[in-house]
Amino acid sequence: MVDMQKVFDIHQAHTGVLETRGLFPIKTPADLSEAYTPGVAGLATYIAEHPAEKGEYTLSGKLVAVISDGTAVLGLGDIGPGASLPIIEGKSLIYKDFAGVNAIPLAIEQVETEEVVNTIANIAPSFAGIHLEDIKAPRCFEIETSLQDRLNIPVYHDDQEGTAIVVLAGLINAAKVVNKPVKDLKVVINGVGASGYATAKLLAAYGMTNLTLVDIHGKITPNDTRYNHYQRDLAASVTSAAGDQISEVIKKQDAFVGLSDANVLSADDVEHMADKPIVFGLANPVPEIDPKVAADAGAAVIATGSSQWPNQVNNILVFPGLFKGLLQTNLTAITMELQGKVAEALANLVAEPTAQEIVPGVFNEQVVATVEQAVIAFDKQGNQ
Amino acid sequence: MVDMQKVFDIHQAHTGVLETRGLFPIKTPADLSEAYTPGVAGLATYIAEHPAEKGEYTLSGKLVAVISDGTAVLGLGDIGPGASLPIIEGKSLIYKDFAGVNAIPLAIEQVETEEVVNTIANIAPSFAGIHLEDIKAPRCFEIETSLQDRLNIPVYHDDQEGTAIVVLAGLINAAKVVNKPVKDLKVVINGVGASGYATAKLLAAYGMTNLTLVDIHGKITPNDTRYNHYQRDLAASVTSAAGDQISEVIKKQDAFVGLSDANVLSADDVEHMADKPIVFGLANPVPEIDPKVAADAGAAVIATGSSQWPNQVNNILVFPGLFKGLLQTNLTAITMELQGKVAEALANLVAEPTAQEIVPGVFNEQVVATVEQAVIAFDKQGNQ
Repeated sequence: MVDMQKVFDIHQAHTGVLETRGLFPIKTPADLSEAYTPGVAGLATYIAEHPAEKGEYTLSGKLVAVISDGTAVLGLGDIGPGASLPIIEGKSLIYKDFAGVNAIPLAIEQVETEEVVNTIANIAPSFAGIHLEDIKAPRCFEIETSLQDRLNIPVYHDDQEGTAIVVLAGLINAAKVVNKPVKDLKVVINGVGASGYATAKLLAAYGMTNLTLVDIHGKITPNDTRYNHYQRDLAASVTSAAGDQISEVIKKQDAFVGLSDANVLSADDVEHMADKPIVFGLANPVPEIDPKVAADAGAAVIATGSSQWPNQVNNILVFPGLFKGLLQTNLTAITMELQGKVAEALANLVAEPTAQEIVPGVFNEQVVATVEQAVIAFDKQGNQ
Repeated sequence: MVDMQKVFDIHQAHTGVLETRGLFPIKTPADLSEAYTPGVAGLATYIAEHPAEKGEYTLSGKLVAVISDGTAVLGLGDIGPGASLPIIEGKSLIYKDFAGVNAIPLAIEQVETEEVVNTIANIAPSFAGIHLEDIKAPRCFEIETSLQDRLNIPVYHDDQEGTAIVVLAGLINAAKVVNKPVKDLKVVINGVGASGYATAKLLAAYGMTNLTLVDIHGKITPNDTRYNHYQRDLAASVTSAAGDQISEVIKKQDAFVGLSDANVLSADDVEHMADKPIVFGLANPVPEIDPKVAADAGAAVIATGSSQWPNQVNNILVFPGLFKGLLQTNLTAITMELQGKVAEALANLVAEPTAQEIVPGVFNEQVVATVEQAVIAFDKQGNQ
């Protein structure tokens, strides 16, 4: 249990958990003339003439904006931009504390999608990267895609790419534990919001095309107009299991990946899966199936999104090292190939995967460097 | 002379002069659950239910955004948003270094005025105050006014209110030096851009209504359609000197305040002013009249915007203490009355003004506390 009084006290004591810090003390008129006018006039003129070098001389070369509109905050839903601040400030703190990456929380009003895009694009000269957080689907797809098109800095949505990468890392090692080739796994993904969609897209791109997408309405098919074109296009690109509802499509499947709601998977469902079933119940705080129930029903590998059970599939394994790496390269796109490389690096960090350990722990000190190095290696390989 | 190599080295060594700093180290799973999930979920829910308390628990309660579109940077003109970054980052550093105020530089693309307003308003939930910087007139008037109408946090334009407050402080003490009542001074303001306009408005509000506004075209009159309605309304509210060009209107005037361009005031102009003339040549880096020429022509008090002569009229005297004070109050408007109180407090900090000292020095350690206390006193007085 979390001590909520302590949570409030910590955040109130310093008005949040972050501050700015100067890197050049101004003690004399000479200092002032170097850190401010007239010295900065020369630097400003230089940057006006050499715009590509802006990031070498200003905070904009190392600062990540962690942005939310508060439309899909954790399991709380649409609680508004102001209420999203503790989450995005927490992520900004994790960036600094885990990876030394400078990040700043920005809550953005829930204006129309196009205006969100314009707003972020308008302030983008101030940043080296954009980390979107807790924005609901399908709005998040359009915002991220539009920004990726317009900006020449990395644009990342943690609920999408972050989740997708950790899930893939977990599946790679889970496949080793059950001794099946990962790309042959028949996988059911339950939930096609931001994280379910992005996870399915990454798995498909990684070659795991035996992929069935399900949600509360049943199986997503390419012609079902209840879904947006992102979801339908994805459904068209994979080979789905027979049936419609989760209890039907789950039969003989190797893996279940739940990115939806508590208790949507039953013991009976697990019993009808293929031999040595893999069950990821990642809904928070209550998973799609209680890990004990899943184990009793024969699940061979079980993961959740919580720290109270083994195998916590947590985005913290990804974003600090990812941006630490990106900021050392000129990469502007977090491609499927890069996501796959990061997932493999994370999976490989567990030397001998077992049912109790398919992903490294959040406090494993090698995680950030491993992800960072995977990004740098990918960049070098691409530039050869 | 500034050592430009050192300016470049300082800014390149750490990628700018600012960074973020965590206030709560995450060493254990318990720490993580308090600084991030699941602890922040409780805090987010609380803020959703008590939106007015957002600023007590998050960075948004203490963070000032220093924002420029780069349309009017120092004396360099329109050099673009990216090139404005060294200036607004320098100001952000000064906030922290001089007053412990957390500020972050935000460069904003040069989109239409209405979109600038929307962009800033859309991200305003993240901040406790907005500091606009180096935005050209008349765009700056509309941006500031619109934001003041829409937001419930202080919105300040340093080139306007900051300059106006320091000029008024300087004139208050200059009047003491020449032994004339400050409100009776006949003042010519040359330049009606952001700073000239705001200075004229503050002086008029302070009771100094013998005020003549001049620019390159001559005297601003209420019906001259070359000027925007802000400028014409202001011209209608004051009593102007006879004549049109600077060489005419300057005759028998007590004070000249230049917020325009180098060398627009001649020795002959100073010689035709009233007895013991006050000459503020605040253009940077080259003033409206060389201080030595002004002195030889009989100027009794001379001020410039530069540190190389006595009486540097510099906004650094205002903004750090102003926001340090504002952040301790619930004030959302920097009214004319508040500006007047801050100017008086700054002026009073010089116990015995002389021709060589009408404003405190930038490194005077009492400046920040004096301005801060003036703001707090004004707030208390208003709430009685």
